[in-house]
Amino acid sequence: MQTNGKKIFDMVGADAVYTDCAYLVRYIAGFEAENGFVISDQDGTTLYTDPRYIEAAEKRLAGTEVAVRLTDRSTTVEELLKKYSRVGIAFNETSYAKYLRLKETGVELIDSMPAFRSAMAVKNDWEISKIARACEIAEDGFLKTLPQIKEGMTESEVAALLEYNMKILGAYSTSFDTIVAFGAHAAVPHHETSATKLKFGDEILIDFGCKVDGYCSDITRTFLFGDDQKHGEFKKAYEAVLTAHELVKERLLAGMTGVQGDAIARDYLTEKGYGKLFTHSLGHGIGLNIHEYPSISPKGENVLQNGMVFSDEPGVYAKGEYGIRIEDTVTLENGKVKSFMSKTDRNLLVL
Amino acid sequence: MQTNGKKIFDMVGADAVYTDCAYLVRYIAGFEAENGFVISDQDGTTLYTDPRYIEAAEKRLAGTEVAVRLTDRSTTVEELLKKYSRVGIAFNETSYAKYLRLKETGVELIDSMPAFRSAMAVKNDWEISKIARACEIAEDGFLKTLPQIKEGMTESEVAALLEYNMKILGAYSTSFDTIVAFGAHAAVPHHETSATKLKFGDEILIDFGCKVDGYCSDITRTFLFGDDQKHGEFKKAYEAVLTAHELVKERLLAGMTGVQGDAIARDYLTEKGYGKLFTHSLGHGIGLNIHEYPSISPKGENVLQNGMVFSDEPGVYAKGEYGIRIEDTVTLENGKVKSFMSKTDRNLLVL
Repeated sequence: MQTNGKKIFDMVGADAVYTDCAYLVRYIAGFEAENGFVISDQDGTTLYTDPRYIEAAEKRLAGTEVAVRLTDRSTTVEELLKKYSRVGIAFNETSYAKYLRLKETGVELIDSMPAFRSAMAVKNDWEISKIARACEIAEDGFLKTLPQIKEGMTESEVAALLEYNMKILGAYSTSFDTIVAFGAHAAVPHHETSATKLKFGDEILIDFGCKVDGYCSDITRTFLFGDDQKHGEFKKAYEAVLTAHELVKERLLAGMTGVQGDAIARDYLTEKGYGKLFTHSLGHGIGLNIHEYPSISPKGENVLQNGMVFSDEPGVYAKGEYGIRIEDTVTLENGKVKSFMSKTDRNLLVL
Repeated sequence: MQTNGKKIFDMVGADAVYTDCAYLVRYIAGFEAENGFVISDQDGTTLYTDPRYIEAAEKRLAGTEVAVRLTDRSTTVEELLKKYSRVGIAFNETSYAKYLRLKETGVELIDSMPAFRSAMAVKNDWEISKIARACEIAEDGFLKTLPQIKEGMTESEVAALLEYNMKILGAYSTSFDTIVAFGAHAAVPHHETSATKLKFGDEILIDFGCKVDGYCSDITRTFLFGDDQKHGEFKKAYEAVLTAHELVKERLLAGMTGVQGDAIARDYLTEKGYGKLFTHSLGHGIGLNIHEYPSISPKGENVLQNGMVFSDEPGVYAKGEYGIRIEDTVTLENGKVKSFMSKTDRNLLVL
C-alpha cells in the first residue's frame, strides 16, 4: 500500500497537515473512509476513522507507516490541532463552513493544495502500475463486451454488460458512469445513457473506465454496428479524429504546456475543417480522480512532465448526425507519450 | 423534471442564490453537470454549462422554468454576480479557495446551506416516487440475483451480478460501491468487497442501492448460504437485530428527535446484551445523497418529520465471527414509518 504522508508534510512545511477530503485522505494514508481524516506531522501519519471503517483500515494499513485511531470525543479535529501553530489544509477541498470551525482553534492555516496538486500530478511507479492495470481491465472488458452486443439492446444494457465484465475482470468500480451513445446520440459529448435500442448501421460511442486501488482509467471507442453505407461523412471525420489522436502521441513532448499539447490536435482538426466541431479540451489529468491536474486545453498553462497521466481525446461532434471521440489514457515517459492502451484497435471497427 | 430554484431563492432571501456543487445544482435545476453552475434570482433560474453538457441539458430541461446558457468568457461567476448585493452560497459546499474568489467581487455572501438542508430533507411526492422506484429496482435486482449465487463465486462477482441486474432493471447507477461480505467479513460494517470465495454455510451480508433520476435507495440483507448448523449465536443475534429493526418501524414517530429514534433500536439491543456490538448509528437521511440530513443517531438532535426519508439499519458485529445488518429505506407518512421495501423478506433466509 502506497502512503504519502511524509512527502506532503515535507512539501507543505507546516507543523502538520490535516485533511478529511476522501481522495486526499486516500493519497496520504492509502485508505478511503467516508468519515475519516488524517494528520501528518513530524512524528508520522495518523488516520482517524469511525467504528464502521476501523477494522478495514487496520487490516489494509498493517505494516505501513500509518497509525490508525478510532475517533471519539477526545479526537475532534479542533482538539487535535490545538498543539500546532501552523497547519496545512487544502483550501480547494475544505468547505468554507469547515474553515470557519478550524479557524476558531486559533491555529494559523496555510494552503496545502499546491503541494497535493503537484505531488499527485506526477505518478510514481506504484501509481503507474495501478493505472496500467485499470486500463488493461477496461480494454479487456471492452473486448469481452464487443461480441455480446446485439441488435435491439439498449444503451443501458450495453453499459451494464461492460461494467459487469470490468468488475468480473477485477475492477473495484467504474471510474465514472459509463456513457453509451447510439447513432446521433454520440453527437452529445456527455450523452446520458438511455433506453434507446441499437439498430443495424448505428454508430456506437462508449466512454468508460474503472478503478483499481482507487486509480482510474479512461477510454473512449467509436465504432459501427454494421455498415449501412450511409456513413461517408462519419468515416471522413473518423480518419481526421484518429490522425489527431495519433499526432498527439507522436508530437506531444514533456516540457510543452497544456496549450501546446491541445494545439497539436486542434490545429490539425481545424486544418481539416473540423475545428468548430471539436468542442472540448484535448485532455485532463487522471489519477485518484477521473479529472484532475494537469489540463491539456487552450487554457492549460501547466507544463507537462514525465510521470503525468492524462487523456488524449480529440472529438468531432456534428449535431443530429454523428459524434466521434477516440480516447486513450497516456503517460509521459522519457519525454514522450506512452499509451496504456495496447489491446483495442483505434482503426474504425465495424461489428 | 423537478426544479427547486424558486423555492430555495425564496427561502434564502438574498438577491440571488449561486452554486456549482453537483447535487445542489441538480436539486435546483434538475440536471447534473460536472462543470456547471446555477444562479436563481427573482427573474428565474439559469443553468450555465459547457459544450460537453449543453445539448443534454437543453433536452432535459426543455419546458421547465430553467434557462440553459453556454458558459463563455462573459459568463464567469465573478462577472455574473456583480449585479447583486447579497448572494446566497452554501458554506458547506463551497471551498475556501472558491469563497476567497467570490469575496473579491465585493458581494455580500450569506449561507444558503440551512435552506438547502431543510428543503432537501423533506421530500415531495415526485422525489418520493423516484426513491420508491430506486428501492423497487434494488429489491427486484436482489431477488433476481439470489438464485444466481453459487458456491465458489467471489464477493466481487456477486456484487457485479447484483449491479448488472439493477442496471438492466432500470437503475442509472449504484448509489454507492456495493458491499458484499462472506462469513466473518460481515463483522466489518464497511467491508471492502474482495476476491474471497463463497463456501457452503457462509453467511452473506449485502449492502447496496441504486439511483433513479439522481435519487438513491439503500438496503442491506443478511442471509445464509446453506445452514451448516454452526450458526446458533448468529441466529440469536439475527432475531435481536430483526426485532430492533421492526420496533423502529412500529414506534418511531414524526416529532421525535434522531436521538429518540436511534434509542428505540439501541435500547432493545442493549437489553438483549448486544449494545456494545451495535457500533454505528441507526440511520441517515437518503435523497440525492446516500448520506444526508437528518441523522438518526445518539447525536442526532434533528426532529424527524413527515416526508423525510432515511435508513432503518440496526446492526450487530461480533469481530471475527459474524455481522448482521438489516436495512430498509423508509419514510415518515402521516406521522408513522412506512418502508419502501415490500418485496424482500426480512426473516432469515437460507439459500
